[in-house]
Amino acid sequence: MTHDIETASLAETAPARRGRRRRGGEKTGPDLFPQKPFKQPRHIFKPLEAVSADELEAIHDASMRVLEEIGIDFLHEEAKQILKEAGADIKPGEDRVRMDRAMVEELVAKAPTEFTIRARNRAHDLQVGGNALAFSCVASAPNAVDRDHGRRPGNQEDYRNFLKLSQFFNIIHCVMGYPVEPVDIHASVRHLDCVADMLRLTDKVYHIYSLGKERNLDGLELTRIGYGLTPEEFVETPCVATVINTSSPLRLDTPMLQGLIEMAKAGQVSIVTPFTLAGAMAPVTVAGALTLQNAEALAGIAFAQLVRPGVPVVYGGFTSNVDMKSGAPAFGTPEYMKAAIVGGQLARRYHLPYRSSGVCAANTVDYQAALETTLSEWGAINGGAHIVKHAAGWLEGGLSAGFEKFITDIDLLQKIAEYLTPLDVSEAALAVDAIREVGPAGHFFGTQHTQDRYKDAFYAPIVSDWRNYESWSEAGSPTAYDKANMLYKKALEAYEQPSLDPAIDEEITAFVERRKAEGGAPTDF
Amino acid sequence: MTHDIETASLAETAPARRGRRRRGGEKTGPDLFPQKPFKQPRHIFKPLEAVSADELEAIHDASMRVLEEIGIDFLHEEAKQILKEAGADIKPGEDRVRMDRAMVEELVAKAPTEFTIRARNRAHDLQVGGNALAFSCVASAPNAVDRDHGRRPGNQEDYRNFLKLSQFFNIIHCVMGYPVEPVDIHASVRHLDCVADMLRLTDKVYHIYSLGKERNLDGLELTRIGYGLTPEEFVETPCVATVINTSSPLRLDTPMLQGLIEMAKAGQVSIVTPFTLAGAMAPVTVAGALTLQNAEALAGIAFAQLVRPGVPVVYGGFTSNVDMKSGAPAFGTPEYMKAAIVGGQLARRYHLPYRSSGVCAANTVDYQAALETTLSEWGAINGGAHIVKHAAGWLEGGLSAGFEKFITDIDLLQKIAEYLTPLDVSEAALAVDAIREVGPAGHFFGTQHTQDRYKDAFYAPIVSDWRNYESWSEAGSPTAYDKANMLYKKALEAYEQPSLDPAIDEEITAFVERRKAEGGAPTDF
Repeated sequence: MTHDIETASLAETAPARRGRRRRGGEKTGPDLFPQKPFKQPRHIFKPLEAVSADELEAIHDASMRVLEEIGIDFLHEEAKQILKEAGADIKPGEDRVRMDRAMVEELVAKAPTEFTIRARNRAHDLQVGGNALAFSCVASAPNAVDRDHGRRPGNQEDYRNFLKLSQFFNIIHCVMGYPVEPVDIHASVRHLDCVADMLRLTDKVYHIYSLGKERNLDGLELTRIGYGLTPEEFVETPCVATVINTSSPLRLDTPMLQGLIEMAKAGQVSIVTPFTLAGAMAPVTVAGALTLQNAEALAGIAFAQLVRPGVPVVYGGFTSNVDMKSGAPAFGTPEYMKAAIVGGQLARRYHLPYRSSGVCAANTVDYQAALETTLSEWGAINGGAHIVKHAAGWLEGGLSAGFEKFITDIDLLQKIAEYLTPLDVSEAALAVDAIREVGPAGHFFGTQHTQDRYKDAFYAPIVSDWRNYESWSEAGSPTAYDKANMLYKKALEAYEQPSLDPAIDEEITAFVERRKAEGGAPTDF
Repeated sequence: MTHDIETASLAETAPARRGRRRRGGEKTGPDLFPQKPFKQPRHIFKPLEAVSADELEAIHDASMRVLEEIGIDFLHEEAKQILKEAGADIKPGEDRVRMDRAMVEELVAKAPTEFTIRARNRAHDLQVGGNALAFSCVASAPNAVDRDHGRRPGNQEDYRNFLKLSQFFNIIHCVMGYPVEPVDIHASVRHLDCVADMLRLTDKVYHIYSLGKERNLDGLELTRIGYGLTPEEFVETPCVATVINTSSPLRLDTPMLQGLIEMAKAGQVSIVTPFTLAGAMAPVTVAGALTLQNAEALAGIAFAQLVRPGVPVVYGGFTSNVDMKSGAPAFGTPEYMKAAIVGGQLARRYHLPYRSSGVCAANTVDYQAALETTLSEWGAINGGAHIVKHAAGWLEGGLSAGFEKFITDIDLLQKIAEYLTPLDVSEAALAVDAIREVGPAGHFFGTQHTQDRYKDAFYAPIVSDWRNYESWSEAGSPTAYDKANMLYKKALEAYEQPSLDPAIDEEITAFVERRKAEGGAPTDF
């Protein structure tokens, strides 16, 4: 199993070459991180289908019956008014909104199948839909964790460090939420500091929370300022996204509806994602949970199209099952994988971009963490997802963001991107002449065919330790967790803050200070 | 993220129900292992295609040029004689065999597309091909490892313990090789003791090594005795398999050809698997390595069909890449995944069953081990593999078999089997009435729909720890590795030896003793 390859020269030359692999403004970091430039992977495989066309129609039909016969509560007067005027069935004094399938389908059909979200750095513009794939970092974790300092409530330093890692790694294409919630900043002004950090510490597409109209408006205005756009330009240019979680079952809460309204009015992107946990807020059957997911997602999407026809939206799927022993959410389960694949089938049925996730329920960076996370990705990628949220750093069902987990997940994501690179099947790649040259019992390392290609032939992992057992033992038997603990600090050291026009920077500061002086946003959400 | 489900009753009743889930002769083990009965999973998804039909033909054509123009060395006089008589081009005194594509394709077409390998326990008969999938345990590791005793050269006790685990877990469908090499048994008689153990400690389909004609003949005769078949019945009944590894590049060694001849003559199964490591024994390009893999696999398969037309064979793919820093084999890489998927396309082109693997290069049971193993499985399952070898317990690129790894992999395999279970999309599963009953802001746990289904609704993992962070911390923050360390011992305790007719048992003993008295088999292989 060991091979007499002459590798001394390889070990010397390969990293040097990798270190030079810089293009344009892309930073490839130190030799520890032989990154490729920022580029969204493309789906080269046909998405899988876990249900037949007839079965898909049965799910569609069931969710239409839910919308027609049962209805969804919209906890927002303006939203109900908009819906009533459009023909929805709403009894006076009630929140329940019933929509017939013709209305829903007509509205949903107004949403674009694919679109681009502009980034502050145009090289980081995000394509959503089509065959493009995007990975986002973990979002919304209340705690941060690393091995050196243990688990603690999220704070601004951790928040900023995760933003830096998200900027540093080219395989992270967007920042769809605060990686960790910085609870040391008062809730009334947290969104101001956080969005300002998004603008300053990264130049990738980001997300603002829908936690009350004021926060949406502040986030939108900060984004407009940060991007240097006029109000007229901004409303015609998707620049920022929000995630709208329905309050399953069958409810859209006030802040979420405010978010849908403000984002749609501003021409910005809403990712509508029901949190349909089979056995808890959704039926215990995967098909039933998907019926509910589909009804809720389409209700939110249809509503956004009422506010502004053609506004970009994303169909979000987050259906999983609970641990029947504790009621806690489980992730990366077989049920989760199937739901992720059918979620993709549903999104494609409505010609909508599809959001899935890379998630797990593990408490630490062990076999379980990788198994569940990779199986989540298996469902997302095979399901044809366009945005994979939480794809780096997610632990404990989202209760913590892990620094080491962030790094190990980067290796997974980079591997997926390579997996999605088309195979070279050219005459030269088929290598008949190299096979002829080497002949029986020979070795390929010495051939010109190999020498011409070996430096870039294979993906070079950042976490996987491929030393033999003896060398690895002598080095203290480090695990992937140990290596990631070292690497996340190296990545933070290598991080470089992207440039920002000083005039814009001042304008951001002025806006944040003014809004803080005004008291920020209400905290009774 | 936590939910107020009433779970006290669940925790009490669910395991009891699971403990009763016994059917027929299946042992489901203790409550720690809520296994389903032995049943091969079925491919419900269309296999992926990593290359187009034209590109697949280009690989086919390139491998045909290799067989026609370059040829393969067959290091066996009888084999060359057989090939020459069939029309192959062999120069006098040389080992090089050139076959034209018409000859190769005509011979390969004689092999069956699917077949059944009989097991000693007919309930464990193995379907090979079609939509059936089978998982085999790790094979051929020189070392065994567990946390309590560290890494040591394989020995008979470890060998037997891995056989017991393979028998105990219903998700292991066959034993395709010695899980670990018991080097404490002299090589001349090792095969006798090992095959006798295969017959006694398991009743699943197993494998005999092709390490010299005498070992094949002893293994075949022991199998015939163990199965209680007459020689006439045996030759008409596939009962046992061997793996034929070509000595890449372009060589079939003497013991492998002896194995192909003896297995084919006896009507038994050969799994022809070239070991084509891109950058070492194969071209550095994945397409080139696949060209070589295809040429070598088809050469072995065509030869087997010459010996006995229609004899069952399997197309084996094991193409991976080396670590360019050390020359060591890497597994679960993006290149590996793509090669596994194209391997499936090639096998289907020739209407042959396909063997792939669940492998990694990790030295311990960490994130890397799960990541690489799961990505290997991703390639194998998406590639439509029929037999996934090394699927439980493989570590260090095959240099050790791990007891804890065996258990963590069982969780992966059971999850894959559940993932391959068709989704129930019946009217009842769509759950519109349950959604109506619960309504907005309700909870599904209390509904009859949930109560009727929750016990069997979701896969219950054996390794994944779904406790919340606090409970998990109080329990000492165990990793999956820790849990697996406990579980493998519990599984060994729960193991029960399958029954064997005492008369057959005596006959096995008598055969082994006679052959030992005769000196066993030569050790100069």
